[in-house]
Amino acid sequence: MAYVQQMKIKPRMTVGELLEEMDKCGVLGAGKLGSGAKIIFNMFTDPGFTVFLSLAGPAVAGGLRLVIRDLVEMNYVDAIITTGANIVHDLVEALGYRHLKGTSPVNDVKLRGKGIGRIGDIYVEQKAFEALEKSAYRILDELPERRRERIAVYELVEEIGKKLKDSNSILAKAAEHNVKIFSPAFLDSMIGLNLWTYGQINKLRVDPMLDMNKLMEIAMEAKKTGAIILGGGVPKHHVLVANILREGMDAAVQITMDRPEPGGLSGAPLEEAISWRKIRETGQFVTITGDMVTYFPLLITAVLEKIEKSKDKRS
Amino acid sequence: MAYVQQMKIKPRMTVGELLEEMDKCGVLGAGKLGSGAKIIFNMFTDPGFTVFLSLAGPAVAGGLRLVIRDLVEMNYVDAIITTGANIVHDLVEALGYRHLKGTSPVNDVKLRGKGIGRIGDIYVEQKAFEALEKSAYRILDELPERRRERIAVYELVEEIGKKLKDSNSILAKAAEHNVKIFSPAFLDSMIGLNLWTYGQINKLRVDPMLDMNKLMEIAMEAKKTGAIILGGGVPKHHVLVANILREGMDAAVQITMDRPEPGGLSGAPLEEAISWRKIRETGQFVTITGDMVTYFPLLITAVLEKIEKSKDKRS
Amino acid sequence: MAYVQQMKIKPRMTVGELLEEMDKCGVLGAGKLGSGAKIIFNMFTDPGFTVFLSLAGPAVAGGLRLVIRDLVEMNYVDAIITTGANIVHDLVEALGYRHLKGTSPVNDVKLRGKGIGRIGDIYVEQKAFEALEKSAYRILDELPERRRERIAVYELVEEIGKKLKDSNSILAKAAEHNVKIFSPAFLDSMIGLNLWTYGQINKLRVDPMLDMNKLMEIAMEAKKTGAIILGGGVPKHHVLVANILREGMDAAVQITMDRPEPGGLSGAPLEEAISWRKIRETGQFVTITGDMVTYFPLLITAVLEKIEKSKDKRS
Amino acid sequence: MAYVQQMKIKPRMTVGELLEEMDKCGVLGAGKLGSGAKIIFNMFTDPGFTVFLSLAGPAVAGGLRLVIRDLVEMNYVDAIITTGANIVHDLVEALGYRHLKGTSPVNDVKLRGKGIGRIGDIYVEQKAFEALEKSAYRILDELPERRRERIAVYELVEEIGKKLKDSNSILAKAAEHNVKIFSPAFLDSMIGLNLWTYGQINKLRVDPMLDMNKLMEIAMEAKKTGAIILGGGVPKHHVLVANILREGMDAAVQITMDRPEPGGLSGAPLEEAISWRKIRETGQFVTITGDMVTYFPLLITAVLEKIEKSKDKRS
Repeated sequence: MAYVQQMKIKPRMTVGELLEEMDKCGVLGAGKLGSGAKIIFNMFTDPGFTVFLSLAGPAVAGGLRLVIRDLVEMNYVDAIITTGANIVHDLVEALGYRHLKGTSPVNDVKLRGKGIGRIGDIYVEQKAFEALEKSAYRILDELPERRRERIAVYELVEEIGKKLKDSNSILAKAAEHNVKIFSPAFLDSMIGLNLWTYGQINKLRVDPMLDMNKLMEIAMEAKKTGAIILGGGVPKHHVLVANILREGMDAAVQITMDRPEPGGLSGAPLEEAISWRKIRETGQFVTITGDMVTYFPLLITAVLEKIEKSKDKRS
Repeated sequence: MAYVQQMKIKPRMTVGELLEEMDKCGVLGAGKLGSGAKIIFNMFTDPGFTVFLSLAGPAVAGGLRLVIRDLVEMNYVDAIITTGANIVHDLVEALGYRHLKGTSPVNDVKLRGKGIGRIGDIYVEQKAFEALEKSAYRILDELPERRRERIAVYELVEEIGKKLKDSNSILAKAAEHNVKIFSPAFLDSMIGLNLWTYGQINKLRVDPMLDMNKLMEIAMEAKKTGAIILGGGVPKHHVLVANILREGMDAAVQITMDRPEPGGLSGAPLEEAISWRKIRETGQFVTITGDMVTYFPLLITAVLEKIEKSKDKRS
Repeated sequence: MAYVQQMKIKPRMTVGELLEEMDKCGVLGAGKLGSGAKIIFNMFTDPGFTVFLSLAGPAVAGGLRLVIRDLVEMNYVDAIITTGANIVHDLVEALGYRHLKGTSPVNDVKLRGKGIGRIGDIYVEQKAFEALEKSAYRILDELPERRRERIAVYELVEEIGKKLKDSNSILAKAAEHNVKIFSPAFLDSMIGLNLWTYGQINKLRVDPMLDMNKLMEIAMEAKKTGAIILGGGVPKHHVLVANILREGMDAAVQITMDRPEPGGLSGAPLEEAISWRKIRETGQFVTITGDMVTYFPLLITAVLEKIEKSKDKRS
Repeated sequence: MAYVQQMKIKPRMTVGELLEEMDKCGVLGAGKLGSGAKIIFNMFTDPGFTVFLSLAGPAVAGGLRLVIRDLVEMNYVDAIITTGANIVHDLVEALGYRHLKGTSPVNDVKLRGKGIGRIGDIYVEQKAFEALEKSAYRILDELPERRRERIAVYELVEEIGKKLKDSNSILAKAAEHNVKIFSPAFLDSMIGLNLWTYGQINKLRVDPMLDMNKLMEIAMEAKKTGAIILGGGVPKHHVLVANILREGMDAAVQITMDRPEPGGLSGAPLEEAISWRKIRETGQFVTITGDMVTYFPLLITAVLEKIEKSKDKRS
C-alpha cells in the first residue's frame, strides 16, 4: 500500500513542481488535483483523443478567457460546450467592454440604478449589452438570408467569431481553429434575447437538431474522447449525452463545488456516468471538489509544463 | 428589534404549525423557511400572480411528482420551466416504469452490466428508455406532418401530455390545465436523443424561438410574476430572463444547495437578480439553502394548510 | 427491489405524516430523514439505550433551546456534549437577555460600536455577557472553596444549572434530571473567559480528567449507546471517542452541512466511525446533509408523534 | 473602478507568478487567493506581527506536515492552536508509522477487521496508536512527579516534542523554536485517551487554566497579531477568543469549505469577528472558500517566493 508523502514546498518552485508534490501526497484534494493533471496530460498528448471543454459558471467573467483561448490556439481542445453566458461575456470583452471588480458593501438596488449587473463580486455595465445587441443585429443582417432560414447555434457562433477582430477572443480563436462551440440552451442568454427580438421582425430560424448532428458526428468519429468539465449544468449533461452512442468517454475531469447529496447531475460524481454508458468502464476520471476559477489555471499550467518537459526529454 | 422566539414543538402538530414556529424563530434556516412559506402563500392567493415553477435536479425521480402534479391541478402554477430530465422521468413513470431505491454498496460497472442507470441512490432501468423511445416515435408519427415541420418544445410536450393516460403525470395534468412546460435545452435529454434519431429519417423541426414567444407572452401579460425555483441551472436562468422585459419578478423563492462563492448563477443569491432587472426592487424573495426534495414538500404542505385556514376564517 | 414512492401531501397533515411520506419515498434527503426518524424513535423507546446529544453550531441562538429542554425533561437524552457557546447562550436567556433578529444590510463595524455581536443574522448584546460575568462570579463565590480546588466541567455546569430559576433553561432542566453536560473545551467560551479571569485572583482549578471519568463511566455502563449529533466539531469527536472502549455506538444520527471531501471529522460520513470502532459493525446510523436548525425540530416532532401513536396502539 | 484582468498562464511559471495572475484577476476565488497571499506576506515580513496558526481538519494526515514544520523552523509562526488529532498524527509519523493511501472500494467493516482507521481516503494502522500509548506512558513516567501534579497542555506537548528524534516533526521543531502548541480540547484525542488511562493509576493533572495564561500572555504582549486559520472548529474559536482582550487581531486568513448559512463559527465569514472585537475594525482579512490541503501549500509557496524576491530587490 502506498504512503502519504508529505508535500515539500520551496520558494520559486514551478506550478508543475507543486502539483507533483500534491500528486505524490496522493490523498484528499491534493490527490484529486494530482490525478486531474495526469488525466488531462494524457488527453492532450495522446493524438487519439478528441477533447471536449464544458463550461458552466463564470469562466470568462472570472478570468479564464485567455487560458481557454490558449488551449484552443494550441489545438488541445476540439469542441466547447457552454452556457450562453460565457459566449456573451467573451463578446462583451471583444467589443471593448470590460468586467469590473466590485466594491463593498454591495447594494443591488443602487447597482441597478447605475446600470450595472452583478455576478458575485464582478460588475458588468448594461451598456455593454446594448453594444452587443447592435453588433449581433449587424452580424445577422450580414448573413445571407438563406443561412438565416435554418442555422445551427454552432454555425451562428462561428459566424460571429469570424467577424471579431480580438485575438484574445475565444470565439474568434475557435472560428480560426475550426473548434465548434455548442450552446444547447443558447436562446437563454443576453444574445439569445437579441436573436429572439431580431427574429420578431426578421427571418431567423435556429435549428438545434443541426447542432446535435455536428456534436454527435464529432463524438462518433473520435478514436477516444475526453472532457474537462468546469462546473456542471446543461453543458456537463450535454457532453455526457454526446458520448452515449459510443458507450462513453475514455477520460474526464470535472471541477465543481456542487454537492452530490441533492441528487442533481451538476454535483454527481463521475462514477455515476459509468452506469449510464456515458463514461467507459475503463475510463480514467476524477471529480475535483473546488473552485474552477483557481483550479483550472492551476491544472492547465501544470499540464503545459509537463508537456514541455516531456518534449525536452525526448529531444 | 424582534427577538428570536425559541421554537415549540409538540407531537401531532401539523406541518403548518411547525413552519409557524420556524417563522416566529425567524433566524438562520428556520427564518428562511418561514419567509419562503409566506412568499409562496402570497403568490398562490393573490389572483394577480402568474407563477413559474423552475425545476432542475431530480424533482420526479426524487419523489416530488405528485406534489407538482397537485399544484398544477389546483391551478397554483401557471408555467413550468424544467430540464429535459424531469420530463423524461415523468414519462418513465407514465409508461408504467418505476424509479427504484438503490442498494449499498454501489458498483457502477455492475449496474451498467445490469442495464441500470444511477442517480445518487436512485436506480432507473434502461428498458424504461427503450419504451420511452417507442412511445415518443409513436406520438411523433401521429402528429400531422405540418406540425412536425415547425413545432415549439412546449407544444410537443403538450402533445405528449395529451396522449398520456396517467392521472399522476405532470405532463398529462399540465396539458389538461393549459399549463405550458418549457425546456430550453430539451434536446439535451433522453427524449431529446429520441427526437434527434427520429429527425434523422423523418421530418421534424423544433423551433426554440416559438418557445421564447410563448414564454415572453406569459411573462408580459402577467400583472405580477413569481417563481418557485428548485435547484438552479438553465431553468433558473430562463425564468429570470423571461422576466427581464417586465423589469423583474415580484416574488421568488429558490431552494438550492449550490454555493454562491464560485460565482455561478445556480448558487447566486436572488439579490443579484435585482441588479439585472430580473427581480423588482420591491420584489419579495428568499434563497433557502437546502435540499429541494425535503424542503419543497414541507413548504407546500404548510402553504396549503395556510390557504385552507385562511378560507376557514373568511367563511 | 423497492420502488421510490412519490410523496403525497395534504393540508393539515401532521409532521409525522409528512415524514412517513419521506420515508416511503426512501431516496436522497427524504430517505435520510425517514431513516433518521426511525433510528431516533428506536433510541428513545428502547429502554436499553443511553442517548448522547452532541451540539455544535448555534443550537440555542438558532431556536432549538426548548426542543432540547423538552428532550431532557422527557428523559430521552442522557448526556449532552456541547461547545461552550451553547452553554453561554442558554445562560444569556436564563439571565433575561434575548437573541435578536438581525437587520439588513449588515455592517459589523457599526454593530461593534453598538455593542452587538453577530452570529449570521442573529444579534447578541454585549451587556448580556457583562451580566453573565457577574452571575458566574457569584456562583463561583458561593461554591465551597474545597470544590473550587478541583472541579469537573460537568460539575460546574450542574452547579450553575441548579441556581437558575428559568424553567426553559437546558442547564436548569439537566441539573434537575441528572443529565450531565460535558464541554471538552469549556474554557474556550465567554464563560470560560470568566472562569479564567476569576481564577487569576481566586482559587479555581478545573480538571478535565474528572469529566473523562464521568463520560467514560456513562458510556461503559450503558447497555446500548446512541447519539444525535447536531453539527460536527469537538462535540462529535468526543461522543465518538467516549464510545471507543465499548467497541462503538449502536445507533447514531448526524445532521450537518459540512462536506466529506476536505477530510475533517465534522463532515465525515458516520461509516468511517466503524473502522475506528466508534460505531459498531451492527450499528444503525445515518448522516443527514442539511441544516440542524430546521431538520432537528422536524425529526423530533415526528419521533414524538410516532411515540404517542405507538402508545395509543398498545393501550 | 478596477478591471478584471484575464489570467495569463505559461508553462514553468512559478507558483508565485500564478498567484500574481490570480491577484490581478482580482475576483471570485482567484481574488481571495490573491488577497490571502498579500495578507500572509505582510504577517510574515512585518516584525511587529505575532502569528497564530490554527489547525482543524487533517493537516498532518493530509500532507501538510512539512509545510508547517518549515514555517516553524523559519520562525514565521509563533503559536499553534490545534485539535488533538494533528498532534497525534505528527507523533504517529515521528514514531515511524505512516499514513497510507486508501484503496477503492471502501469497506469500513473490513478495515476495522484489519485494524485500520479511515480518514476519507487516508488509512491509519491501529498499531501506530499502540506505539503511541507506550511512548506517551514512557514520557509521562520520565516527567518529575512535581510537574505531573499540575501541567499545562502546551507544556506537556513541549515535553513530548523535546523527546522526539524526528527533524520532520512539528512538535519537535516547535519545542526547539519555542513555539507553543495549544490544544484546548486535548483530552479529546487518542493521546488524550492515553493521558486519561495513565491518570487512572498515576498522578497526572492537566490544568487548562495554565494554557489560557500562556495564550493570553502571547496575545497581550504582541504588537500586532495575525492568524492563518485552516478549517474552523474549536481552534478557530480559540484564536479569536485569545485576541478579544486586545480588541481583536490585525490580520487573518481562513481557508475552509464550511458554509456560513447554518450559522456555526467554522463557516462564519471573518467579518462577523469584527462585531465581537476579535478582529480589529482596521484588520486585514479574507475568508477563502476551499480545501486547505491544496490552498495552504499554494499560498505559502507563493508567499515564500514573494519574500525571497523582496529580499533580492533590497540587496
